[in-house]
Amino acid sequence: MRPSGRDLDQMRPISIETGVTKHAEGSCMIRVGDTHVLCTASLEARVPPFLRNSGKGWVTAEYGMLPRSTGSRMRREAASGKQGGRTVEIQRLIGRSLRAGIDLVALGERQITVDCDVIQADGGTRCASITGGWVALRLAVNKLLKAGDITTDPLMDPVAAVSCGIYAGQPVLDLDYPEDSEAGVDGNFVLCGPKLIEVQMSAEGSTFTRDQMNQLMDLADKGVSVLVEAQLQATA
Amino acid sequence: MRPSGRDLDQMRPISIETGVTKHAEGSCMIRVGDTHVLCTASLEARVPPFLRNSGKGWVTAEYGMLPRSTGSRMRREAASGKQGGRTVEIQRLIGRSLRAGIDLVALGERQITVDCDVIQADGGTRCASITGGWVALRLAVNKLLKAGDITTDPLMDPVAAVSCGIYAGQPVLDLDYPEDSEAGVDGNFVLCGPKLIEVQMSAEGSTFTRDQMNQLMDLADKGVSVLVEAQLQATA
Amino acid sequence: MRPSGRDLDQMRPISIETGVTKHAEGSCMIRVGDTHVLCTASLEARVPPFLRNSGKGWVTAEYGMLPRSTGSRMRREAASGKQGGRTVEIQRLIGRSLRAGIDLVALGERQITVDCDVIQADGGTRCASITGGWVALRLAVNKLLKAGDITTDPLMDPVAAVSCGIYAGQPVLDLDYPEDSEAGVDGNFVLCGPKLIEVQMSAEGSTFTRDQMNQLMDLADKGVSVLVEAQLQATA
Amino acid sequence: MRPSGRDLDQMRPISIETGVTKHAEGSCMIRVGDTHVLCTASLEARVPPFLRNSGKGWVTAEYGMLPRSTGSRMRREAASGKQGGRTVEIQRLIGRSLRAGIDLVALGERQITVDCDVIQADGGTRCASITGGWVALRLAVNKLLKAGDITTDPLMDPVAAVSCGIYAGQPVLDLDYPEDSEAGVDGNFVLCGPKLIEVQMSAEGSTFTRDQMNQLMDLADKGVSVLVEAQLQATA
Amino acid sequence: MRPSGRDLDQMRPISIETGVTKHAEGSCMIRVGDTHVLCTASLEARVPPFLRNSGKGWVTAEYGMLPRSTGSRMRREAASGKQGGRTVEIQRLIGRSLRAGIDLVALGERQITVDCDVIQADGGTRCASITGGWVALRLAVNKLLKAGDITTDPLMDPVAAVSCGIYAGQPVLDLDYPEDSEAGVDGNFVLCGPKLIEVQMSAEGSTFTRDQMNQLMDLADKGVSVLVEAQLQATA
Amino acid sequence: MRPSGRDLDQMRPISIETGVTKHAEGSCMIRVGDTHVLCTASLEARVPPFLRNSGKGWVTAEYGMLPRSTGSRMRREAASGKQGGRTVEIQRLIGRSLRAGIDLVALGERQITVDCDVIQADGGTRCASITGGWVALRLAVNKLLKAGDITTDPLMDPVAAVSCGIYAGQPVLDLDYPEDSEAGVDGNFVLCGPKLIEVQMSAEGSTFTRDQMNQLMDLADKGVSVLVEAQLQATA
Repeated sequence: MRPSGRDLDQMRPISIETGVTKHAEGSCMIRVGDTHVLCTASLEARVPPFLRNSGKGWVTAEYGMLPRSTGSRMRREAASGKQGGRTVEIQRLIGRSLRAGIDLVALGERQITVDCDVIQADGGTRCASITGGWVALRLAVNKLLKAGDITTDPLMDPVAAVSCGIYAGQPVLDLDYPEDSEAGVDGNFVLCGPKLIEVQMSAEGSTFTRDQMNQLMDLADKGVSVLVEAQLQATA
Repeated sequence: MRPSGRDLDQMRPISIETGVTKHAEGSCMIRVGDTHVLCTASLEARVPPFLRNSGKGWVTAEYGMLPRSTGSRMRREAASGKQGGRTVEIQRLIGRSLRAGIDLVALGERQITVDCDVIQADGGTRCASITGGWVALRLAVNKLLKAGDITTDPLMDPVAAVSCGIYAGQPVLDLDYPEDSEAGVDGNFVLCGPKLIEVQMSAEGSTFTRDQMNQLMDLADKGVSVLVEAQLQATA
Repeated sequence: MRPSGRDLDQMRPISIETGVTKHAEGSCMIRVGDTHVLCTASLEARVPPFLRNSGKGWVTAEYGMLPRSTGSRMRREAASGKQGGRTVEIQRLIGRSLRAGIDLVALGERQITVDCDVIQADGGTRCASITGGWVALRLAVNKLLKAGDITTDPLMDPVAAVSCGIYAGQPVLDLDYPEDSEAGVDGNFVLCGPKLIEVQMSAEGSTFTRDQMNQLMDLADKGVSVLVEAQLQATA
Repeated sequence: MRPSGRDLDQMRPISIETGVTKHAEGSCMIRVGDTHVLCTASLEARVPPFLRNSGKGWVTAEYGMLPRSTGSRMRREAASGKQGGRTVEIQRLIGRSLRAGIDLVALGERQITVDCDVIQADGGTRCASITGGWVALRLAVNKLLKAGDITTDPLMDPVAAVSCGIYAGQPVLDLDYPEDSEAGVDGNFVLCGPKLIEVQMSAEGSTFTRDQMNQLMDLADKGVSVLVEAQLQATA
Repeated sequence: MRPSGRDLDQMRPISIETGVTKHAEGSCMIRVGDTHVLCTASLEARVPPFLRNSGKGWVTAEYGMLPRSTGSRMRREAASGKQGGRTVEIQRLIGRSLRAGIDLVALGERQITVDCDVIQADGGTRCASITGGWVALRLAVNKLLKAGDITTDPLMDPVAAVSCGIYAGQPVLDLDYPEDSEAGVDGNFVLCGPKLIEVQMSAEGSTFTRDQMNQLMDLADKGVSVLVEAQLQATA
Repeated sequence: MRPSGRDLDQMRPISIETGVTKHAEGSCMIRVGDTHVLCTASLEARVPPFLRNSGKGWVTAEYGMLPRSTGSRMRREAASGKQGGRTVEIQRLIGRSLRAGIDLVALGERQITVDCDVIQADGGTRCASITGGWVALRLAVNKLLKAGDITTDPLMDPVAAVSCGIYAGQPVLDLDYPEDSEAGVDGNFVLCGPKLIEVQMSAEGSTFTRDQMNQLMDLADKGVSVLVEAQLQATA
């Protein structure tokens, strides 16, 4: 029934390749089916003004799509002179999610910027960005620990995200683009281990019930456990 | 226990004053406690390019805060040359929410723009904007019906929104600013009658469980029923 | 002869409601007929760079129109990415006018920003902004005096403004929108008590004589005396 | 008493050199003392959207200062990404003034853009721009007449402008920069022959009386007659 | 003598991997040593306004660097609101170079946009972009030929580019970043088969002779022949 | 054969008038045929951040065209909100060229900004800007030397630039606009005395050989010697 032939609760194949760029303190290419996102974590000594001399660090994120990561070419945001609303919304979500899984005091007064650049898009780019972004962050933090710059690991359980939605009347896990563009209800679930960090469900021209919400939550739990396994393997 | 002395499941006083500007096809000033938002609905004959000759209409929203709607003066977005990320995120949410409660085919090929301008802010401005925005929309649609421009009412149940969160360890309804700035978990719930349209829960530097999520949902149901009553009275 | 039926030298009804927002140091809603402007005065400890360590303060103003303050919806300036020429011109006039009526040395090294946001427009918004802006400024300065932050009142006579013009060949006082859009000559007169601060008269596709100029000045004197009375009552 | 040694009612030396660029339909370099402005009039077949198929033409103006036209180098507006408030205000004034002296119906459905670029500034650049701009406009219109593209001369009396102000307590004509920066009251007067087109008087931190206003008007009349003579000679 | 141990006339290892994204009509990842650029060619039916109904097509290019493609993180251009001068200069060069190697009439009235996004930078990104960009263009044109949309191959000899410079007093081929940042003279040479398309040589705080110029040209000839071989293999 | 009737190796008439604005530390109007560029050099005590406390100075350049310097009016860059790609490219070239001919250590920690504003364009504006920009720079440096602010002359041989190209199949010197718009190959050559600073040759829809490149270089040598003579006379 799904265009891809997957089961309702089946994730797409996941691969996380680390160390894909020589400059970044942490990096990976995450592939969730045909969605490919390059994630890098960049360490900087400075923090934003509101944290100066606070002893606390900061994690922030930026998101972008290459112009031809999509089916038809999108206008380059650098050329159009501003980031669109969708971009801004997504990068705020990524940053918020990653900050929820890190102890900023233990990180110390330094900033890590996680860049998530979509090389190829097929639905679920924000979730792949969060999941891959955490891997890049984990690798950058490992470097700090190994160098003795920090002594307590500031990271908690892996932060991972998956989308679920109501497609053709059925709750399905990990929507790809053909499903995403048809789904009546679309949700993104960000977890940190067994706990929730962020839930976003929305419906355009439709509605949903609390039962459906709980069904999607069940699927999300299942999907995230698969993602976390891939994250742990990649950073082992 | 709440700074305002309210019960955990108690809304702030709500008032919705309609017809507050002579130009707009629909308008109201919604006051939820000390949060005051002026909402106008503007009817235009044209639709966005992607809907031309589709027979479908469109509802969109814009959001702004007056520079001194807040405790300390914010920079005017028109002067700084762009809308901030938070503004963009909120106006996309308002537009999406209102569109979920309207039949765009029944509306016909016309656009209604709902402007939500915060006159005074004390937490929950996006929820007040959705709730008041629906009232302005309802009034503008009434005008179309009365003039015979459309014959089927495109609007469904009222769309209303409320914020709930975990404050000082307790689930509370309708956070005001002092609560909002301290809350570990913060959720916005948009309903269309008994059905859900949008759920957004997020935690910065914290996490939440599915149980807590359901507790907040219960509070939201309660709050929205109060808001809907006010909406129906205002548009009776 | 006037669309509103007013006498040639008759002002529209004026009301000035103070204390309309809880955050601003001074605020009022001024209504001149159907023109409604929300004016707030925000006090800040800092001054612009060119006044640092000068012992002098600063008063500046910003002006905006809500998108649907007008008969047909205008594009939101924050969304279009810049303030239009008319906006810039008006806010410079408001700032210049208010500064002409205050002793910046007596104010001390602090800045007061006066925001004038048009809620509903029906002609004469810049004049209403100056008149209401002065009330907000007066209230903010009163706070400084009461708190003992300054000991000498820096404000002089009230600053008030009115528009006059040649409509249908006749000099008329306080043009409303239907008159303004037809007037051959249009003037704005800003006074500080009996003295002039700013005179702007312009004609598009027409000309005027010095006699006409003096007739408009006579009307302006009359109109301003009515406005000053309202200002003094509101701030008594 | 004046820094330049001029009499109170004495203009600076004026020269208007026409035909200074080979491309423009009309052009001149106007020199009013050390203020030098290059004015060009560019004829285009199109009119702004609001005039299409109206049979009416349009005259508009743009103004700029070369970065080192001033005593210390100013930031280039093209580099800073926007025109400042002063620039916008001035170019609106120039356009309005020139339009007041032309019959747009007789001009026919075409647009003339007058560019005024300040090569060297020493006070009074907006007035020199209007005066020189009219000469460029006159020359461009002459071309249309000569080519038989229009048969009725749309231009009326010359449009010319001069600044007057209260300097060291005295009304003076044609302020140069040292006077302008010290003047308590500063006015710009635009005339079309014996009639007024635009009057702008403003005071920062000061006030003025109607008597002073009339004294400045008398000086302006005198100054403009000198300017008009130069305009007529240049375009003879 | 070279930091990398290469001979003076030795290129870095080159690899060109095609078909790296499923959406673009043509794509490759070109790797010249540690410089990695993702190139895509996007086919669109429309042409720029100045070519409409001309029967001619257009090739244009855009260039970008991922924020952490470099040793220290650069600001994202989409976030800073504009493309920097270097970016603009490079993308104009890429577009000009590719257009010089294609018959725009034979291409027909369609546009191909070549996007060159630097994944990892180690000197010579503009040259790698041109070389890889041509491969993407070749693949997209092949698609048009295969589909019968065009019948004459509009592409001529491969367009390839290489940088040469004077490093430590010696002419060297294919500068990597450590060399590039120290070179006294830096040149980029774009060839189309045996012919030159573009030569850019520049010196900051230094000069060069015509002899040196010819030595660099000799090196460039050698380097380009290696690149062309790789291009032909990749598109065979 | 050339539209102007010049010999293939003949420059247009050159004039360099110095001291054309009273404010700038150095200035000239350079006229190369009908191409007229006003060049000013502005001295400032500050240097860019990356040079603070380095003991080194900086030379930078900005370039602009008056809107009607061209055959048909161009949009004013200040009004369109950004400098176009061509402008950015040219001003970077001017700055780089002038820096190559100055010892920044001998200049000391100060900045000179060279503004090149095209008053009338007829081809070769970037070359005229470099040539005239050097004259303005020379005059500003002379002022520093005369005032004893620096004791060693930081300037070396004059920096001058000329364009050459293949027009109608023939190598020609100093292209004017009619030639430039038809030329198959277009080159700009910047020299500092007998040495090369910058060579840029490009071909759109055409190619060139190394022989042609050397022929153009020969012409450039000849043209620059004429320009240098004019520079030395103007600054004698």
